[in-house]
Amino acid sequence: MVNFDFHAPTHVIFGKDTEKLVGKETAKYGKKALVHFGGGSVKRSGLLDRVIASLQEAGVEVVTLGGVQPNPRLSLVREGIALCKKEGVEVVLAVGGGSTIDSSKAIAVGVKYDGDVWDFHGGDKNGNKPTVTDRLPLGVVLTIPAAGSEMSNSCVITNEDGMLKRGSSGNGNRPDFAIMNPVLTYTLPAYQTACGATDILAHMMERYFTPEKHVDLTDRLLEAGMQTLIKNAPIALAHPEDYGSRAEIMWVSSLAHNDMLSCGRVSDFSSHQIEHELSARYDVAHGAGLAVIFPAWMKYVYKKDVMRFAQFAVRVWGCSMDFENPEFTALEGIGRMEKFFQSIGMPIRLPELGIDDKYLREMADKCKKSNGDGTQGKFTALNSDDIYEIYKLAL
Amino acid sequence: MVNFDFHAPTHVIFGKDTEKLVGKETAKYGKKALVHFGGGSVKRSGLLDRVIASLQEAGVEVVTLGGVQPNPRLSLVREGIALCKKEGVEVVLAVGGGSTIDSSKAIAVGVKYDGDVWDFHGGDKNGNKPTVTDRLPLGVVLTIPAAGSEMSNSCVITNEDGMLKRGSSGNGNRPDFAIMNPVLTYTLPAYQTACGATDILAHMMERYFTPEKHVDLTDRLLEAGMQTLIKNAPIALAHPEDYGSRAEIMWVSSLAHNDMLSCGRVSDFSSHQIEHELSARYDVAHGAGLAVIFPAWMKYVYKKDVMRFAQFAVRVWGCSMDFENPEFTALEGIGRMEKFFQSIGMPIRLPELGIDDKYLREMADKCKKSNGDGTQGKFTALNSDDIYEIYKLAL
Repeated sequence: MVNFDFHAPTHVIFGKDTEKLVGKETAKYGKKALVHFGGGSVKRSGLLDRVIASLQEAGVEVVTLGGVQPNPRLSLVREGIALCKKEGVEVVLAVGGGSTIDSSKAIAVGVKYDGDVWDFHGGDKNGNKPTVTDRLPLGVVLTIPAAGSEMSNSCVITNEDGMLKRGSSGNGNRPDFAIMNPVLTYTLPAYQTACGATDILAHMMERYFTPEKHVDLTDRLLEAGMQTLIKNAPIALAHPEDYGSRAEIMWVSSLAHNDMLSCGRVSDFSSHQIEHELSARYDVAHGAGLAVIFPAWMKYVYKKDVMRFAQFAVRVWGCSMDFENPEFTALEGIGRMEKFFQSIGMPIRLPELGIDDKYLREMADKCKKSNGDGTQGKFTALNSDDIYEIYKLAL
Repeated sequence: MVNFDFHAPTHVIFGKDTEKLVGKETAKYGKKALVHFGGGSVKRSGLLDRVIASLQEAGVEVVTLGGVQPNPRLSLVREGIALCKKEGVEVVLAVGGGSTIDSSKAIAVGVKYDGDVWDFHGGDKNGNKPTVTDRLPLGVVLTIPAAGSEMSNSCVITNEDGMLKRGSSGNGNRPDFAIMNPVLTYTLPAYQTACGATDILAHMMERYFTPEKHVDLTDRLLEAGMQTLIKNAPIALAHPEDYGSRAEIMWVSSLAHNDMLSCGRVSDFSSHQIEHELSARYDVAHGAGLAVIFPAWMKYVYKKDVMRFAQFAVRVWGCSMDFENPEFTALEGIGRMEKFFQSIGMPIRLPELGIDDKYLREMADKCKKSNGDGTQGKFTALNSDDIYEIYKLAL
């Protein structure tokens, strides 16, 4: 187990009707709020009106900014920052899913930063990412369980100039409060529910495949989270208004990515990075891209630690251990995962997303290599050629 | 799953050598610290000197107060409050285990409270416990993984006047930061290691036995924690300087009681309350008392939900499910738990603690009944007669 620093102070208010508390909670942080949201669904459902009414009832003045897209864009973040400055906004409230929350995080940070907010994502002129030391207070009313951004320290923004999708991370990105009502997810389309489930599972798998030893507790906690997701996602798809399964999925989405499950471990976010290139170039849903990339990544790397993949197969997917041939068990686990993705309507190969081999080499070269030596990943270090092979395995 | 409010903002700094960061961390909160501790072990080990040196190096002035006993006493809390007021202390630093942390919590709260600090535990003259709205900042250097007080919202103090052991709970009791170095636990005597392990397991069992349905995620997370503890406690006892197992135990001690594992559940702390009477009257170690009370409580209540006890047996203790007679499985789980306690040197019956039937009725009557209708517990409500029967089952 490696040393760790864990500080996830987001105040979670979870359950039925909790969005009614948003005005009272927001008023603790400021008198004028930017309510930031995406497309029409929060309007159509009436949620936006209810949130605004709650804010006004609590004496909080409201400024609104909609239009967040999946893979949230830098241009809208800049617009939000300018709007907050012009209007004297004191607190930012995200009403939506991961894209809206990330866009809100970047706005909250950008308002208090003298330079260009892209510095936190792409690096400043010296290539350094500054640390978030100050930002506007930030709250969330969550509508899509997926990214885990409601408690996470990360914020991913796409710069249209080059379609660069880049993340910022640090405790300064964690929201002050998050309101989560599973009932708000009843109307999520099946495809979005499945993409969310895949993203949640991916967050846990990225932590699970670690080179670190003696990580019993976090191994078991991760297995608990993955088993819960695997059990409940199909129930929610079959019965969209089943409160129990929607609630399990919503809560596991937050715990999957608030870093409690990575305490003492070394995580490997290669699959996320490899997928980022897909969704930046083709604008595919992040979850769908992950369902394609993860099996390919696993097939490429499992020999590095066959027993860990066997443990994953046995404890998460219920495979029987083949003690003579643990590799069979490891591969069976990957196969069951693929079948699970298919069962919830996810693609598992690039052509299902309409993607051919045209840009694979270019994406492999462009993919972030965070190790400093031109490689990416901790479970096993991948260079551009390795990433290219993984893309090819996904064909 | 029931609605919940979760806010555990304690900043955890975990791993080897982390106590060297105590000065820097404490200095963020104040310029003069009360260093509060128990007996001689933190002196003998040199830890106290190292902590004080770190504080002084960071420019923090130090006032010390030792002498905390197991089942920390109100009189010392009062002495600490007076000392802090006299010396103008700005931050309290607990160096020790649960008793020292609880004593420190009560001091930090009492300094900022106009009335008698016992109000938070025994209730004020109207019988109401005030909410902690203000206190001195509070840090911890943990030396005993057991009570989970380093992240928990609870604080238990014993009033020598009547030997009343009473808790206060609320987010105001959560420390601002906790420094945890598993190496500091290498020198813990075996009995204390085992008592701690039992307390940790009890915190998880108290959350596990819930009447609430659809609690998949927290069920699995609790099972993860319990399995980790059951695996690692015997290793730490056999190899006191095994870093991995000491680290697993230390981290699970915090997660077992920071309420992350009770989100959406209804917990049952009857066994803790029933044990509190034991340790208040006989001054037995809390963990040892729990090892005696828990099997008796389980045998008295398991018929209320046989399948939950069967799940506990199968998933936590590795029993095979008897699908024809789930009750056999339920009882086998309780039996394995008793054997586990014995294997780590814990008592499982009152006479092993030198306790006979003399005060059982009196303790049963005195035991806290928090349900308001004269009963205690949520899994099943127990009145004084029920509690008396449980004490008798422990003979």
